[in-house]
Amino acid sequence: MIIVMQPAAKEEEVQHVMTRLESAGLGVHLSKGQFRTIIGAIGDEELVRNLGLEALPFVEKVLPITKPFKLVSREFKAEDSVFKVGNCTIGGSQLVLMAGPCAVESEEQLLAAAEGVKAAGAQILRGGAFKPRTSPYSFQGLEEKGLKLLARVREKTGLPIVTEVMDQHTVKLVAEYADIMQVGARNMQNFYMLRELGKLQKPVLLKRGLSATIEEWLMAAEYIMAGGNHQVILCERGIRTFESYTRNTLDLSAVPVVKYLTHLPVIVDPSHGTGNWRFVPAMSRAAVAAGADGIMVEVHPQPEKALCDGAQSLTIERFTSLTKELSQLAAVMGKYI
Amino acid sequence: MIIVMQPAAKEEEVQHVMTRLESAGLGVHLSKGQFRTIIGAIGDEELVRNLGLEALPFVEKVLPITKPFKLVSREFKAEDSVFKVGNCTIGGSQLVLMAGPCAVESEEQLLAAAEGVKAAGAQILRGGAFKPRTSPYSFQGLEEKGLKLLARVREKTGLPIVTEVMDQHTVKLVAEYADIMQVGARNMQNFYMLRELGKLQKPVLLKRGLSATIEEWLMAAEYIMAGGNHQVILCERGIRTFESYTRNTLDLSAVPVVKYLTHLPVIVDPSHGTGNWRFVPAMSRAAVAAGADGIMVEVHPQPEKALCDGAQSLTIERFTSLTKELSQLAAVMGKYI
Amino acid sequence: MIIVMQPAAKEEEVQHVMTRLESAGLGVHLSKGQFRTIIGAIGDEELVRNLGLEALPFVEKVLPITKPFKLVSREFKAEDSVFKVGNCTIGGSQLVLMAGPCAVESEEQLLAAAEGVKAAGAQILRGGAFKPRTSPYSFQGLEEKGLKLLARVREKTGLPIVTEVMDQHTVKLVAEYADIMQVGARNMQNFYMLRELGKLQKPVLLKRGLSATIEEWLMAAEYIMAGGNHQVILCERGIRTFESYTRNTLDLSAVPVVKYLTHLPVIVDPSHGTGNWRFVPAMSRAAVAAGADGIMVEVHPQPEKALCDGAQSLTIERFTSLTKELSQLAAVMGKYI
Amino acid sequence: MIIVMQPAAKEEEVQHVMTRLESAGLGVHLSKGQFRTIIGAIGDEELVRNLGLEALPFVEKVLPITKPFKLVSREFKAEDSVFKVGNCTIGGSQLVLMAGPCAVESEEQLLAAAEGVKAAGAQILRGGAFKPRTSPYSFQGLEEKGLKLLARVREKTGLPIVTEVMDQHTVKLVAEYADIMQVGARNMQNFYMLRELGKLQKPVLLKRGLSATIEEWLMAAEYIMAGGNHQVILCERGIRTFESYTRNTLDLSAVPVVKYLTHLPVIVDPSHGTGNWRFVPAMSRAAVAAGADGIMVEVHPQPEKALCDGAQSLTIERFTSLTKELSQLAAVMGKYI
Repeated sequence: MIIVMQPAAKEEEVQHVMTRLESAGLGVHLSKGQFRTIIGAIGDEELVRNLGLEALPFVEKVLPITKPFKLVSREFKAEDSVFKVGNCTIGGSQLVLMAGPCAVESEEQLLAAAEGVKAAGAQILRGGAFKPRTSPYSFQGLEEKGLKLLARVREKTGLPIVTEVMDQHTVKLVAEYADIMQVGARNMQNFYMLRELGKLQKPVLLKRGLSATIEEWLMAAEYIMAGGNHQVILCERGIRTFESYTRNTLDLSAVPVVKYLTHLPVIVDPSHGTGNWRFVPAMSRAAVAAGADGIMVEVHPQPEKALCDGAQSLTIERFTSLTKELSQLAAVMGKYI
Repeated sequence: MIIVMQPAAKEEEVQHVMTRLESAGLGVHLSKGQFRTIIGAIGDEELVRNLGLEALPFVEKVLPITKPFKLVSREFKAEDSVFKVGNCTIGGSQLVLMAGPCAVESEEQLLAAAEGVKAAGAQILRGGAFKPRTSPYSFQGLEEKGLKLLARVREKTGLPIVTEVMDQHTVKLVAEYADIMQVGARNMQNFYMLRELGKLQKPVLLKRGLSATIEEWLMAAEYIMAGGNHQVILCERGIRTFESYTRNTLDLSAVPVVKYLTHLPVIVDPSHGTGNWRFVPAMSRAAVAAGADGIMVEVHPQPEKALCDGAQSLTIERFTSLTKELSQLAAVMGKYI
Repeated sequence: MIIVMQPAAKEEEVQHVMTRLESAGLGVHLSKGQFRTIIGAIGDEELVRNLGLEALPFVEKVLPITKPFKLVSREFKAEDSVFKVGNCTIGGSQLVLMAGPCAVESEEQLLAAAEGVKAAGAQILRGGAFKPRTSPYSFQGLEEKGLKLLARVREKTGLPIVTEVMDQHTVKLVAEYADIMQVGARNMQNFYMLRELGKLQKPVLLKRGLSATIEEWLMAAEYIMAGGNHQVILCERGIRTFESYTRNTLDLSAVPVVKYLTHLPVIVDPSHGTGNWRFVPAMSRAAVAAGADGIMVEVHPQPEKALCDGAQSLTIERFTSLTKELSQLAAVMGKYI
Repeated sequence: MIIVMQPAAKEEEVQHVMTRLESAGLGVHLSKGQFRTIIGAIGDEELVRNLGLEALPFVEKVLPITKPFKLVSREFKAEDSVFKVGNCTIGGSQLVLMAGPCAVESEEQLLAAAEGVKAAGAQILRGGAFKPRTSPYSFQGLEEKGLKLLARVREKTGLPIVTEVMDQHTVKLVAEYADIMQVGARNMQNFYMLRELGKLQKPVLLKRGLSATIEEWLMAAEYIMAGGNHQVILCERGIRTFESYTRNTLDLSAVPVVKYLTHLPVIVDPSHGTGNWRFVPAMSRAAVAAGADGIMVEVHPQPEKALCDGAQSLTIERFTSLTKELSQLAAVMGKYI
């Protein structure tokens, strides 16, 4: 940490800060510049954060030097993390396609979607049993009945399933059914739930919050890893900006940034990212070219009849033609589907 | 709802949309303009939302006409809602001051804060027992022990308490202690928790999410009211923007907007809104002048030693001098403290 | 500046950075922490900025310590700047009301507006002769004819005028007529125009750009001051966020921040800030309570017939009742109108 | 346009709106729904915009149905626009690589960059002679001398040049030298300059403003086209969000959106989009996969010595290896370099 003093800070005020740092067990490094006195604190930055030095009127600002995340960082683990789910590996040279409907609606609908996306090349089935909805008057998901349908369709198709968990106390229930536990954007900082997920030994797909910085997203992953579960898959799904032609702004630069900072796999969700089926194929291709380890796409046998997010769902035909394009792109990127 | 067809939409495509609307029980109103055919759907917009018409390639867009919230709106209830908490009324001509430390740290700290803010004029004590923290390595709150301390200090000072609930399953526990249940910004769309709060008969202070639109915020209030609990207090606490001199951007225009759209009281939190004690007094005054029903301010006996958010906490002295200013402003606004 | 090296940076790479700093005439301060080597550069930060050290793969980041603005800062000039315009002073204890129509449309309209706002207490008349419009098909202003009308109405009413300049080469023309030169949000970084304005000895009202950080806004003021014109008035007018109930999000916290960082007066424009006449009075009051030196409000004799921005214009009646409220608030703030 | 009346609007107020629409020559379509009366205005939406109906207290909102842009839209021209610059075509099946230094610094630097990027496959040389800089104390470009150097290097290498114009009155000067006139992000709404560019018969590369919506960006293009110059190339370069790991957030979804709405070519600038050379290759690939017609990349022979934006500049080596990757991706996309 670097503590920047106010220009008018007095000698005893500088001393006060140094004393507090030292009594917290930190090394201290004083530097009097032309315009400012700055104090370098040597040691664990977490200790400095807890000192509340910014509350002092003679302190101008406190600048962090190291990053607040540890276990997720490349410095903790240099090589890429690769997780196995069913026959599929996430984070290596396989490009993972997770596809399926926004919400589980019925066995018929789910099976049709699952068979369609499997035939097109998808390795993992997505589908929501618990649905976070903005309006209390909207369809809220089939809940446990939906989980059972997912399990039945997995049995029939062999596709592992990824499905959302919405609450600390349903973690156990969802974990009985899911192959990958999905944390939705609205729950990225539901810290109690993250801690509960940290106790599992099962992959967690952690969506980036609607307005989460990359650092906050990685800190949420840190919560899960700090609990002992190191199988975290990051998922970029768009951030909120002023642009309204798309539902969110898909931040694809998060892909190389996250690959640079961490060893975790990163998946892109172009369906929520754009909110419009027309733009999903282009953004899926872009995600692969940016270096994503996979994509997660909403596919519905009849988008027009979907109970949820039909506007951003691909038909099976469109998804099939997309996977052909992705397959060629994957080859250029040294990957395979 | 207004359904705008693509310019090239064919007759049978227009017919397809009309048939779907009619079979959902909606009235239909066709209008062929110079450039576009548009279809007006007459009836409950929620029905139209569920039809997924935007998934159809020949539909350009679907525009809502009415607002999605009902119970929170002025159309449902024209006069201001006023709630009684202890001796204090929220939403009427009393200006409510909620003040206290970010986190409950010890009985000594909490009591010092409570006595200080009470003497300065605050009517309600704030203090967090459960703390949502970005880092798993930061202080996470005293939890139930903190709730007990809050109750003890209430007994000693007579101040009702507002404290945060972080999870559906601690709603009952927190409700045993709190006079007002606080929903934090990160939990604004924790829908399971909102539903649980809807079953109480106790005021809920609902903070606006970090990047929530006003409409989403009101829909979260709608969840609580739809459950049967009509005592919702809205709290603006800043939204996330690109500006970095302040921790968030306090959106004070939300105050008149919310007053125009709803009958619910609205409180402003300038501490999280700015993240810097220097700017808290100015924004507290501005909140009152904008028409807020009260403010919620972090006050700590020794901000420099706070375990959480010291940089944005006022000392008791500064808070005391602020309440004098607010008292004069309240008078101009036809209110009293 | 603080140069943070990559964790794996080698001895000779650290040396390379130090040598470059020294050969640019900067002092160097080396600090080897537990996790990172950091190098403090002592001297003018502008010199470090020009070294492009972030281009080096072994440099992790370069952190500025001092602020990039000089002449606008409180460190350059501690006491508030106060400018005289006609009989009115801006930046002192007078609360300045600038009011008038968005665009100058005709002598009749302008005179009606001017007489109305003057009677209500406004000291300065606003009105646009050059109008930056999003669409090439919208009304673009009366240009020089509008300037002449402004001058005629000033003669009749005695009100000084503030009007927008849109281009480097019309600076001279506008300066012949205007008492205050207004720089619109879209032109905040029109650097050639800023330089031209720096050559005048006339107040410049500098609106904050739609998505300008406070620092960029102050750097734009620095351009004008660096040219020799020290009469800069800052004007907050809302920034762009995701919220759509208001046209922009009025960032009132910019008022105390700017007052803390600089000696310049700051004015608030709640008309563009909200885009809706309903919310203008509340935000005008809030601006005054936040410590603004004045407000700038759109007032039109018949908003419904305005050629531009009618939706955000107050009628003369509404403006008159607003000024009464503001007058009482000003008194509480130790100011007068 | 759809005019939505307030729920409490009276019969004569509905009539007032209808009369105003009719007297402006618009057709009127009345629809009384369950909750609202709405009025459809049939005819040119520009006429409705000018009526200022939102200023009426009994009007709730005015919703546009058609888009405000005409000449740039696919409805005006269905097939892709393709422009010829030197031997290169923009907007067709050739993938265009514009590369070169941020600023022209010297003939030696520019020639080294030009020869390097040409050898790597770039077809167009970029380089700024006029530099918009946030600080008045930063290097502001070589101005006309820089233009002359660009011309000299074009002569030596055969590469056409794209360079920025910053002001209405330098349009003529820059047009003497440039093959493509670049409008920077800060000037996207410099309407006087856009009108001047509309009088040329030369391609204009129009960068998206820092916080411009796609609609505003297209309206800026409309200004140029409305003047008679139909050769507009759009350039996405990142928008401002809260994320700080990257300089801006590159909005790649703008590529398919713009391709859907307009017939104009679209280029992506990953250098400004990310602000960090490490992330430029990934985002260049993503741009191509998203369907961009080309990219614009900053390349410097010695980024560490660049007078401007060294941190985001590629070395010639890195650019060369990038073009190899892009060449393979282009083939998958049915394009060639």
